[in-house]
Amino acid sequence: MKLASLKTGSTRDGRLIVVSRDLARAVDAAPVAATMRELLEDWDARAPRLQALYGALNAGTAAGAFAFDPRQALAPLPRSHQFVDASAFLNHGDIMERAYKLTVKKTPGIPILVPRQGDDFRGPHDDYEFPAEADQCDFEGEFAVITDDVPMGVSAAEAARHIKLVTLLNDVSMRGHLTRELQMGFGLVQAKPATIFAPVAVTPDELGPAWQDGRVHLDMKVTRNGEWFGHPNGREMDWGFGEMIAHMAYNRKLGAGFVLGSGTVSNKGYREVGSACLAERRAVETLDHGAAQTDFLKFGETLRFEVAGADGTSVFGAIDVRFVPFKAGA
Amino acid sequence: MKLASLKTGSTRDGRLIVVSRDLARAVDAAPVAATMRELLEDWDARAPRLQALYGALNAGTAAGAFAFDPRQALAPLPRSHQFVDASAFLNHGDIMERAYKLTVKKTPGIPILVPRQGDDFRGPHDDYEFPAEADQCDFEGEFAVITDDVPMGVSAAEAARHIKLVTLLNDVSMRGHLTRELQMGFGLVQAKPATIFAPVAVTPDELGPAWQDGRVHLDMKVTRNGEWFGHPNGREMDWGFGEMIAHMAYNRKLGAGFVLGSGTVSNKGYREVGSACLAERRAVETLDHGAAQTDFLKFGETLRFEVAGADGTSVFGAIDVRFVPFKAGA
Repeated sequence: MKLASLKTGSTRDGRLIVVSRDLARAVDAAPVAATMRELLEDWDARAPRLQALYGALNAGTAAGAFAFDPRQALAPLPRSHQFVDASAFLNHGDIMERAYKLTVKKTPGIPILVPRQGDDFRGPHDDYEFPAEADQCDFEGEFAVITDDVPMGVSAAEAARHIKLVTLLNDVSMRGHLTRELQMGFGLVQAKPATIFAPVAVTPDELGPAWQDGRVHLDMKVTRNGEWFGHPNGREMDWGFGEMIAHMAYNRKLGAGFVLGSGTVSNKGYREVGSACLAERRAVETLDHGAAQTDFLKFGETLRFEVAGADGTSVFGAIDVRFVPFKAGA
Repeated sequence: MKLASLKTGSTRDGRLIVVSRDLARAVDAAPVAATMRELLEDWDARAPRLQALYGALNAGTAAGAFAFDPRQALAPLPRSHQFVDASAFLNHGDIMERAYKLTVKKTPGIPILVPRQGDDFRGPHDDYEFPAEADQCDFEGEFAVITDDVPMGVSAAEAARHIKLVTLLNDVSMRGHLTRELQMGFGLVQAKPATIFAPVAVTPDELGPAWQDGRVHLDMKVTRNGEWFGHPNGREMDWGFGEMIAHMAYNRKLGAGFVLGSGTVSNKGYREVGSACLAERRAVETLDHGAAQTDFLKFGETLRFEVAGADGTSVFGAIDVRFVPFKAGA
């Protein structure tokens, strides 16, 4: 099934709705769960009833159905008590390290996992404010999963069964702060402000055979100001989501609503499929020409991320956001 | 006023109570706010009514008052959408760098801020499970503040006004994973599992003159298995909490319930006042004797953290936790 959270005046967690497979229609989930958080905290008991509602919605028999407007959507889970962003496509890191002669002290078999903030997830169409172009505003197109409660000490196979939803995000990145924060080595703060999510999260079964080994085997289409930027595929992730969740859960439990991002989607065939972030394209240009040719984002630019399923329809809806100057007190 | 959250069978956010100044009695906050989260999201409107209840409780005139049992307490805010732990006592880092000949690439004026998980805050008396003594289990006694909504772009002075509560935490640390994760440079995961909080959080006015420049000018008493370990003072923090919140809010807003830890309390007079973590004492031993003499935590050990106010009474109540082996499925 497909789920989204609509803006409301009164709650920070939005109003949970079930969205039809073609993203055209929706129906209120409130009789079963008022918010996505409420659903995730009691998934096994409540999801089957929403699944039935989803069936009726697709069949055109759901009472109270209305047109789905992604402009009214918050992030599917509007805030989370734990958001961790991986860097699970080693190809991306390899390009960056070669271009800039960096060495990340990786340990074989251990994924890069970056703890992040969960209090300010953004909807798919809201203007994104940032303070200064000198901060080198970049994007990272990523897949992400959302879990229910994950016990401490789970195996990768057990962890995979706690993945309840899959979605799409733009991990907005301020490269002007990244090197300083990476060198300090304690984590990313000013380099990684609020994250933007697709309007819809889907259960893994919606992906059909494109959900394999805890990876999304679909292209991530990235468009900058209406022009193609890249369409790398999620299948080349070096760790499955289940493996990374198990690493996280080694000595902690993960609360329902845990969000894990894949890291910027990146493929070995990057010359053909392009990239899902500016930093990677700039690194490729640096390797090829000795210097980057592509600029970081300027105010007024727009970015679109979308993923089509096997039948060509949009799986998660699109992220389509304009980047604008921050005005204090606005 | 002083606030706590009691365990309940049904909610993950607990049940908010007002606790008397001497920590002996409590009264339900539910007529004003059912949970700490609800209060923080609407602080200005609701806090004055709880302040009045607190006055009545201290005067012995509050209806429905009952004995306060810290063993029934969750963390004052049982979970948060954003927890960041600073390392704001540079003295601690200096000792570590000298002992182990490390170099952290700090930028003058910029605090070390470590994004962390907010989904698994622990109460002050619950046994703490961890998988293996080989993980080198350590503790860090810290002060922490909790904010209401902080807008993007605030100044340090404005940020300080968003500090609504102060508390105490034990930032449990697994040193066996720390070097690997620090070298990788993307943040701390297995090195920093769940965090333990004192039973009570207090409004800054409760600290009287001990709350100055966004710092807590009180000793943090640390006891290991009933024996004195250290009592460093919070006044030597190199950044005030307001300054660090402003750094965080440079390009993001911070949601109500943002928790910011101070980092392990550490003083230049460490030979007299001791330390608030094993790693620092071990580093001092390494500097003095060429090798550490103090062991990391073994299963069965207990740790107590407490802070006395000017009149000698406990400000936040005590963290008093036993460390035990993790048993899967227990």
